[in-house]
Amino acid sequence: MIRLIAAAAIALAVSLVGTRLLIAFLRERGIGQPIREDGPAGHRTKAGTPTMGGIAIVGAAGLGWLLSDLFGGTFTRRGILVMLAIGMAAVVGLIDDGLKVFKERNLGLNKRAKILGLVVVAVTFAVLVLAQTNVATTVSFTRWDWPGIGLGELGWATLAVLLVLATTNAVNLTDGLDGLAAGASSFAFSAFVVICFIGFRHPDIYGEQSYLDLGVISAAMLGGCVGFLWWNAAPAQIFMGDTGSLAIGAGLATLALSTNTILLLPIIAGLFVMETLSVILQVGAFRLLGGRRVFRMAPLHHHFELGGWPETTVIIRLWIVAGLCTGMAVAIFYADFVRLPGVIE
Amino acid sequence: MIRLIAAAAIALAVSLVGTRLLIAFLRERGIGQPIREDGPAGHRTKAGTPTMGGIAIVGAAGLGWLLSDLFGGTFTRRGILVMLAIGMAAVVGLIDDGLKVFKERNLGLNKRAKILGLVVVAVTFAVLVLAQTNVATTVSFTRWDWPGIGLGELGWATLAVLLVLATTNAVNLTDGLDGLAAGASSFAFSAFVVICFIGFRHPDIYGEQSYLDLGVISAAMLGGCVGFLWWNAAPAQIFMGDTGSLAIGAGLATLALSTNTILLLPIIAGLFVMETLSVILQVGAFRLLGGRRVFRMAPLHHHFELGGWPETTVIIRLWIVAGLCTGMAVAIFYADFVRLPGVIE
Repeated sequence: MIRLIAAAAIALAVSLVGTRLLIAFLRERGIGQPIREDGPAGHRTKAGTPTMGGIAIVGAAGLGWLLSDLFGGTFTRRGILVMLAIGMAAVVGLIDDGLKVFKERNLGLNKRAKILGLVVVAVTFAVLVLAQTNVATTVSFTRWDWPGIGLGELGWATLAVLLVLATTNAVNLTDGLDGLAAGASSFAFSAFVVICFIGFRHPDIYGEQSYLDLGVISAAMLGGCVGFLWWNAAPAQIFMGDTGSLAIGAGLATLALSTNTILLLPIIAGLFVMETLSVILQVGAFRLLGGRRVFRMAPLHHHFELGGWPETTVIIRLWIVAGLCTGMAVAIFYADFVRLPGVIE
Repeated sequence: MIRLIAAAAIALAVSLVGTRLLIAFLRERGIGQPIREDGPAGHRTKAGTPTMGGIAIVGAAGLGWLLSDLFGGTFTRRGILVMLAIGMAAVVGLIDDGLKVFKERNLGLNKRAKILGLVVVAVTFAVLVLAQTNVATTVSFTRWDWPGIGLGELGWATLAVLLVLATTNAVNLTDGLDGLAAGASSFAFSAFVVICFIGFRHPDIYGEQSYLDLGVISAAMLGGCVGFLWWNAAPAQIFMGDTGSLAIGAGLATLALSTNTILLLPIIAGLFVMETLSVILQVGAFRLLGGRRVFRMAPLHHHFELGGWPETTVIIRLWIVAGLCTGMAVAIFYADFVRLPGVIE
């Protein structure tokens, strides 16, 4: 528990200070974010805000994770692989952000290169996890609700790749309003803190030593996101960029894969799922129904903005939705956990 | 657990719809909030926003509490008394708000009448609790950390009155920016949900049947606050008024008194404490040091506003502070709880 708190506190402190320094550094060099030209008109004023804030999130989380080792506990293979996936995804995002900034266009890496990069991240993670740990290659809500669907190693690896791609993309889409993604991610990581903490306290049930380490990573990412949110809060002084959103997405996906809560992830990260569905629905309807739109603009948050909600209202309401989803997910996990024979708490 | 979720869900739904209806009702009648004339100049534009939103919070929480009984569980004396205190404090606030609105001044009840009303609430609560329940008249962090300081019935009743006065006042002071108090209260009530849930699952340790009921009330107040926040989010369409802030303060104080987490309350409600301290420091320094000021303006949130932080930034950052305080309080409670002999989880 002390290790969890230490990781979160260190990451929070590093992120608070680090983001501040990053803002100063980027501003000095005039490095800012070009804004998508087809977005809501009001967003034009955001051009030039420093981006790549994800550097602070990932750096702070990494440092929190590393330094928390001083408070006892040991690193585990699973934990190291999750951190590796987060770091690699951050690098993909960093290349993308770098191209955007220096080529001064909102597009960055072309889509194929980005997907390829993320596939490399996911495949590396899946192969190493399968080779080096005894991961359960089943799909379940909470690992205990029902035996789960056995996938075999190849099936599990495929799922891992798809999940990493889907989650990174979902966080990326959600990252369109000041603080929206950072706040929603904070909720999602806090769910993993609780899940891993319960798993850690019951090694007899979860049969796995890595939960403490995974919990520390969740806590460190939580601290990193909250510290970043301090500066990213509307009106944002910095954006997380793809560096942040891809790293966060990779973190959520690999944590779910490592704790076998894959089916719970869509609830933990409910807001990200809704945002993604809104894009899929919008594009699908546009193509299938010959140019019709379901939403005023996708992703979802732009729909509400164009519907007349002030930006801060959209942000706070979607945070509420994210918080409710996370609360529901934790309740499901806990309700399932206490049904187990022999569990007192 | 189902009862907790039901209470929160019902209160959330009622509050979401109820606040909307209340806004329409108050707007139709042109009933709005006069703004303090000595506050930051930017706040003048908020004049006329409907107030008394606390009606929706308390109404929703009451309904959630009552209806959750359908899902099993029974009401307890302690629960009924907490709800009674919340309701009575809401009535005091309502009278105050009503006077403000109809006399069109920001002051409302004179201070003495308001304090007198709250003293009546607190004394009623304390006397009935002492007469009808076996409340522990000690002061402790978590009831288990150390034997606690025995106060005797009179001492405990005095403390109860002071705590209700302090907490209601603290929430009232914090309620000065859109959504600030509602968001911070949501965090505080969620801490009590966790505390009561742990207490309820361990009747052998906590020796008290009322924790489920108290947890339901916390969950219902949480739902009420979150539903209200949906509309209260910046830019606010409604304020909670004294109806809300006094009821929330009374709820937090009586929950802490009933669960014997009195010393933990200042951490659970950390933001409210900071806001109050800022006022005390400001007024104290002004009087003692002959007109010097510690802050640009008290309470704290106005200090940051005048320091150039945009209003939304102040709100979100103070929410972060509130969330951190609540997280710390829950961690302290939990850490102390698991040290008990015989506790596995």
